[in-house]
Amino acid sequence: MGNVKNILFIMSDQLRADYLSCAGHPNLETPNIDALAAKGVMFSHAYVQSPVCGPSRMSFYTGRTAFSHGATWNFVPLPVGEFTLGDYLRPTGIRVALVGKTHMVPDLDGMKLRGLAMDTELGVNIGECGFEPYERDDGEHPNQKVKPDLAYNKYLRDLGYDSDNPWNDFANAAESEDGEVLSGWLMRNSHLPARVKEEHSETPYMTNRAIEFMEEQGDDPWCLHLSYIKPHWPYIAPAPYHNMYGLDDCLPLVRDEKERENPHPVFRAFMNHTSGQAFGRKEVCDAVVPVYMGLVKQIDDHLGRLFAYLEEAGRMEDTMIVFTSDHGDYLGDHWLGEKEMFHEPSIRIPMIVYDPDPAADATRGAVDDRLVEAIDLVPTFLDAAGGSVPTHIVEGRSLMPLLRGGETGDWREEVFTELDYAYYHARLELGVAPHEARCYMIRTDRWKYIHFMGFRPQLFDLENDPNEFVDLGDDPGYADVRADMHSRLFERITRRKNRITVPDEVVIERTDGSRNVGVIIGEW
Amino acid sequence: MGNVKNILFIMSDQLRADYLSCAGHPNLETPNIDALAAKGVMFSHAYVQSPVCGPSRMSFYTGRTAFSHGATWNFVPLPVGEFTLGDYLRPTGIRVALVGKTHMVPDLDGMKLRGLAMDTELGVNIGECGFEPYERDDGEHPNQKVKPDLAYNKYLRDLGYDSDNPWNDFANAAESEDGEVLSGWLMRNSHLPARVKEEHSETPYMTNRAIEFMEEQGDDPWCLHLSYIKPHWPYIAPAPYHNMYGLDDCLPLVRDEKERENPHPVFRAFMNHTSGQAFGRKEVCDAVVPVYMGLVKQIDDHLGRLFAYLEEAGRMEDTMIVFTSDHGDYLGDHWLGEKEMFHEPSIRIPMIVYDPDPAADATRGAVDDRLVEAIDLVPTFLDAAGGSVPTHIVEGRSLMPLLRGGETGDWREEVFTELDYAYYHARLELGVAPHEARCYMIRTDRWKYIHFMGFRPQLFDLENDPNEFVDLGDDPGYADVRADMHSRLFERITRRKNRITVPDEVVIERTDGSRNVGVIIGEW
Repeated sequence: MGNVKNILFIMSDQLRADYLSCAGHPNLETPNIDALAAKGVMFSHAYVQSPVCGPSRMSFYTGRTAFSHGATWNFVPLPVGEFTLGDYLRPTGIRVALVGKTHMVPDLDGMKLRGLAMDTELGVNIGECGFEPYERDDGEHPNQKVKPDLAYNKYLRDLGYDSDNPWNDFANAAESEDGEVLSGWLMRNSHLPARVKEEHSETPYMTNRAIEFMEEQGDDPWCLHLSYIKPHWPYIAPAPYHNMYGLDDCLPLVRDEKERENPHPVFRAFMNHTSGQAFGRKEVCDAVVPVYMGLVKQIDDHLGRLFAYLEEAGRMEDTMIVFTSDHGDYLGDHWLGEKEMFHEPSIRIPMIVYDPDPAADATRGAVDDRLVEAIDLVPTFLDAAGGSVPTHIVEGRSLMPLLRGGETGDWREEVFTELDYAYYHARLELGVAPHEARCYMIRTDRWKYIHFMGFRPQLFDLENDPNEFVDLGDDPGYADVRADMHSRLFERITRRKNRITVPDEVVIERTDGSRNVGVIIGEW
Repeated sequence: MGNVKNILFIMSDQLRADYLSCAGHPNLETPNIDALAAKGVMFSHAYVQSPVCGPSRMSFYTGRTAFSHGATWNFVPLPVGEFTLGDYLRPTGIRVALVGKTHMVPDLDGMKLRGLAMDTELGVNIGECGFEPYERDDGEHPNQKVKPDLAYNKYLRDLGYDSDNPWNDFANAAESEDGEVLSGWLMRNSHLPARVKEEHSETPYMTNRAIEFMEEQGDDPWCLHLSYIKPHWPYIAPAPYHNMYGLDDCLPLVRDEKERENPHPVFRAFMNHTSGQAFGRKEVCDAVVPVYMGLVKQIDDHLGRLFAYLEEAGRMEDTMIVFTSDHGDYLGDHWLGEKEMFHEPSIRIPMIVYDPDPAADATRGAVDDRLVEAIDLVPTFLDAAGGSVPTHIVEGRSLMPLLRGGETGDWREEVFTELDYAYYHARLELGVAPHEARCYMIRTDRWKYIHFMGFRPQLFDLENDPNEFVDLGDDPGYADVRADMHSRLFERITRRKNRITVPDEVVIERTDGSRNVGVIIGEW
């Protein structure tokens, strides 16, 4: 399909949609990402399939919603029978590789039943959710023994950072005035610079590895998932990014005392989490948000370097580039830290797509406010790279018609997000069984409706209450709206792609066809 | 678990629950099946997961509902990532084999992506939905070229039945008085005897093959799926079964003129099928039903022979025996032929379970009216044979506590059945897209509710209208019942087993456990 030979699929971890200057942040300048948006299309209403790393990513990689692909939380293996971008693209001759994080855990039990192990190339590709692990690094390494050969640790040690686990002791640690090492895991230390030089920290390292991959690949086609660990916690940045921003640069907190009065039980349980309790305190927000901004700024700076390389190498002519994130970060909004719940800071993500083909010239610089989902990327990439989209498996829709101004037909009216909160303390507080810790959100232009198994729903009117302070989930005046939203939710759930081994086209060919194969049913 | 060393899993194809004397049929004597019921438990309210061969069988073999396993209709391959009874039992050292029909189609595309082909033992087991195909025969062979090596055809040819395809030309054909061969596919010929000797017809052949397997296996443990093709069409029986029953022996037709006045659109479209039109005519029912009864009687006779063999070989002491079917047959009830819709003749099946262990002595001969589903057999077999039940994958419940009078806790209050009618002419008549041809039934003791995507629901009051003549699906007086049933349906659908790679026990162990692995989230 035209000029798209390569795909550069960039993900930041835990980056909210509104922490980019092109998305309206008044004080966080991200000129390089803005430049990408100016060359491509920025989707202002892009949503994740689940507001947690693992399930969200598996949706990005499979094109299927979280309870369809089954990796419903972090450390839940993607089942061996789920196919990925790599499964689809690799047979077309494209090298599909990873630099950075996926959060994938291999389905070793399932692989064993299908005769697969991690000691073959096929096994590795499957166990790494379709990516050749050019550099796999999930960016959480408190225990060196779990991954003794971590390349980034070796890199730091070779540079003289003297520790078994310099990731933990240097890149994600600070030190006190008297030289004591302070944990980067603790947010009280977030304001201090990390103990690595900026050029040795994770963001430049991953950027370098991406450039090395592209250099190595030369003119051969590739799809690279460059998956940055930041601005995900540990919230700690190397100088000068650690104090590049001050309190005056921060967005005002979006929270209201009324939210804590008689809240929905599941929302309350998440507010009671350690992270919710911490971010409920303004001093925590004040310590973390400026550093979070610094980490975003650092990514933007290195993306500038990356884009310059692409330009120089001629790759801007034949490479589709996406910049996105796996979910947002409450950062104290709604009295929460982390993500998980369904407010906009958690589920809305940046989504910028640059299409090098002249067919996309008409949309360059456009902001498209149609509802877009994480699952749309797999079909977009396949569409762009000339592969065929397995529409009987993939639940997303190609964005190509939106990028090239083509016929889109009716675009979707809802986005859909799910959560399996079985692993959280909230489940214990609520006394819920693991298989019942499920919630489902559906959002239209105007309404956001959340069904919690075993609890009343939540409902927000985004038109009159854009900050989502007023939960109408048990307001008798909104029963009709809830019924309509519930019915949309039911529809969405029953439209999952369940018949994944036969495309609709084949069904159509074979409809009412038994007589063609000699089978005569019910004839006198 | 006690004495269960072997499993004999017998299935008849298209056998309604009420066509056995132990289930109350006044004129069809089935003494051998009755004897099994007297030794075991007869579940009087057993239901299929989908009223069509393929999806129903895959539910029996995977323990998962039809839209969970994804083989939603005949010829829709079971996805490579779906595990089966064979996958679970084989590692315990039990030989798991098939004699007869499964309707399985291998997922060759998926297998290829996972490095599997049908030229290895593992590939064959996967491609045959977990069964070693000791004798695979789906019993529909209009075209000899599709399966040139069909063993049953070779058997008949060796006996002197002179044809390329004696299945079609002898076993499922009749002849006119002047010797013209008449197709067994056409119901006008159902009253005539098949052109094979009784002992050469399919039911005795499959019975023989099952006995050969058990003899071959000796004292080594086995699980055999003996899967009879009959009484499924072609409705034709060898003498003396072709005219063993007359019109006086038939059950009265369960249908009412009111059903044809303004029926539900999907129901109407199925009435308009060739089979519905045919069975709408009383002469067709009169021709077919007696032969259908003969085919059941023939199965009962050969089961007598099979059970005698088991007795003699000492296998009644260590073999669990199940007798069931993959769905029913309208046989003209409700103006329909075939199955597919959700009336009792279509979705309710015989389900008799004999447990050889003395622990089951207290329930021998019992009729248990609790709601039981096809997906309950996989966990029952695993439970009985001492395997562990993967409760995070399997959606059914073990029947062992019911067989042995143990604690069952709350038993289920609903049974659940789904249909993908994409391949039917009905879909064309209704103008529905393939992925929208979906319906879902939930049935409690009293109510049966069916949600059709894109159409109004159906509702039947089984207490006041046991014949399901009065569709309350659009009766304003029943809005509350429909809302309650819809909410039960939503619950059932959202309780599918989606997180199939991690059991609940592991989730519980790891809940709120990140700090145990050194990850500190949201702490000051």
